[in-house]
Amino acid sequence: MPSLHVDLGPRSYPIHIGSGLLADAELFLPHCNSGPVAIFSDDRVAALHLPALRRTLTEAGKPFIEVIVPAGEESKSLQQVESVCGRLLEAGFGRDSTLFALGGGVIGDLGGFVAAIYQRGIPFLQIPTTLLAMVDSSVGGKTGVNHALGKNMIGAFYQPRAVVADLDTLDTLPEREFRSGLAEVIKYGLISDPGFFAWLEEHLDAVLAEDSDALSHVIATSCKDKAEVVARDEQEAGRRAILNFGHTFGHAIEAASGYGHYLHGEAVAIGMIMAADLSRRLDLLRESEQQRIYQIVEGAGLPTLCPRLPAEEYLRYMRVDKKAKGGQIRFILLRGIGAATITGDVPQAALIQTLNAFMEP
Amino acid sequence: MPSLHVDLGPRSYPIHIGSGLLADAELFLPHCNSGPVAIFSDDRVAALHLPALRRTLTEAGKPFIEVIVPAGEESKSLQQVESVCGRLLEAGFGRDSTLFALGGGVIGDLGGFVAAIYQRGIPFLQIPTTLLAMVDSSVGGKTGVNHALGKNMIGAFYQPRAVVADLDTLDTLPEREFRSGLAEVIKYGLISDPGFFAWLEEHLDAVLAEDSDALSHVIATSCKDKAEVVARDEQEAGRRAILNFGHTFGHAIEAASGYGHYLHGEAVAIGMIMAADLSRRLDLLRESEQQRIYQIVEGAGLPTLCPRLPAEEYLRYMRVDKKAKGGQIRFILLRGIGAATITGDVPQAALIQTLNAFMEP
Repeated sequence: MPSLHVDLGPRSYPIHIGSGLLADAELFLPHCNSGPVAIFSDDRVAALHLPALRRTLTEAGKPFIEVIVPAGEESKSLQQVESVCGRLLEAGFGRDSTLFALGGGVIGDLGGFVAAIYQRGIPFLQIPTTLLAMVDSSVGGKTGVNHALGKNMIGAFYQPRAVVADLDTLDTLPEREFRSGLAEVIKYGLISDPGFFAWLEEHLDAVLAEDSDALSHVIATSCKDKAEVVARDEQEAGRRAILNFGHTFGHAIEAASGYGHYLHGEAVAIGMIMAADLSRRLDLLRESEQQRIYQIVEGAGLPTLCPRLPAEEYLRYMRVDKKAKGGQIRFILLRGIGAATITGDVPQAALIQTLNAFMEP
Repeated sequence: MPSLHVDLGPRSYPIHIGSGLLADAELFLPHCNSGPVAIFSDDRVAALHLPALRRTLTEAGKPFIEVIVPAGEESKSLQQVESVCGRLLEAGFGRDSTLFALGGGVIGDLGGFVAAIYQRGIPFLQIPTTLLAMVDSSVGGKTGVNHALGKNMIGAFYQPRAVVADLDTLDTLPEREFRSGLAEVIKYGLISDPGFFAWLEEHLDAVLAEDSDALSHVIATSCKDKAEVVARDEQEAGRRAILNFGHTFGHAIEAASGYGHYLHGEAVAIGMIMAADLSRRLDLLRESEQQRIYQIVEGAGLPTLCPRLPAEEYLRYMRVDKKAKGGQIRFILLRGIGAATITGDVPQAALIQTLNAFMEP
């Protein structure tokens, strides 16, 4: 079983990756406070994977309650935060309690945020059950909820005590969601790990077949790559922004197309195609490299075109993005595969050309 | 003008205390991000003190918006957090913005919490306008809101970039609120500063007359005493709990009597009387010391008795307190004036005797 260590000084934590991990109490108990545990999940994931975790805690004699919210992005709201905190208060949970976030990105973001602000912070463990959550939201400490006026606009940086990624949970993941997770995997190769990108090009078939050795390698490498970036810039002051490669476009595509039309990774996939195109237009990236990027995204079964809308509509959503500084949109571009760069200096004309080049007919 | 420095490594910040400070742009601007400022206040404070701050920012050419909420504890809610964040989003505020919290404890707690979670954190400045906020909530980084099931149950540890305590704002503070603030001042003497306690006994008249030299000394010493405790234990793992002296009883009194019946400092005053009594019953404190404590609280015009209710009612609220560990209530007691101690080991009988000894007839 591969294990990683995310090095953040006093907030460091391990990531365990493998099969059958939900049954291994020793991966969970050493990271819990002395009091009870709240297993936080959504109704879809709970039906599939909560029984295994329930058995483990019961056998270990650790008291716990189950707090289940409806599956879906709509649960990422302050109303839901209030309701979940109410459940914990009703159960008499104090600062000696611990929260387990069992689920995908929504559960990790919402559960982590509840843990961050419940009584000003209780420990939490991430137990991701989607590829996207395993390679993305389980590393980096970003937690939060949506506001009616913008996605992820309310949140906190808050690190888990441990991440337990049980590969068995991926067996029940719909293929479309699996492929969406691959978008973030490809991203790590593109921004900082050219060797990993080449490995992905070579082993794409094994990955798509969900071969378990290939999956372990994909998840461990993605977490390692992300952890390296995060360890150097925990609060996202500078370099960490490269993790948002594809996201400036991606967030605008999600917002403009109406949340839910695309999965997050699908929007990021189109965003990466656009960021690569913009990089090529600005003479940072060779056309052959742009081609390789297009091919792997398409080969992973991810979309490459966004809905046809006036470019100005996408631009408007980009300007409200958290990465906009003083109204200027900041872009993560590529100076080659594996070499991301951050710039605010993008001519509007090139940007509009890129947007128009990847709209559906 | 006395200035202090709260030493928390990379999160260190200055506290400025004096008259006319709202007019001094140099106390504010160096701590702001490059973008616009949101002056956050309540309708009562804004009417009195916002014009001075508005003039200062206007003359300095710093762009700002004003976000005003209704005065009162009811504003400390997640609904209000959502609404304030909505105002910031509508105004296009990004991570380069800064929040000024101009007001008393509610504004500091709510404004600080909004700053902590808006886009995962923007800088904020505390501009306290009550004695309580100056000596208590402006030091320590505790921010948060209430939940229907408990006060301050949702929050974050988040430090301001600077605190500016303008004594002129106290001129408009109702006397009852001023005396309520004195309860926390007395507390600092009791838990860690016997010299300050003796000074207060000697200069109580000057303090009650709001003599400006006496006030400066009171605020600076209180902040210094609190900052020393906080610097050693920022996340409230251990020793910092002594700052809750009088609060285990106080919170229960506030809850059992219905929030709003007592001001916070008034409930803490009764709580300190009770904690002193309990300390004496457990042979930790001499009767003469208990007498001195009673006299200064009474001399400051603060209440010393709580509403008559079954003791069990108060106990129930104490058990849900954040300081309860594994269901056991933790108490901050005194081993003498200036020497607080933390214990979970209090016989229920003594506790009930103390509660019954300080109920209204």
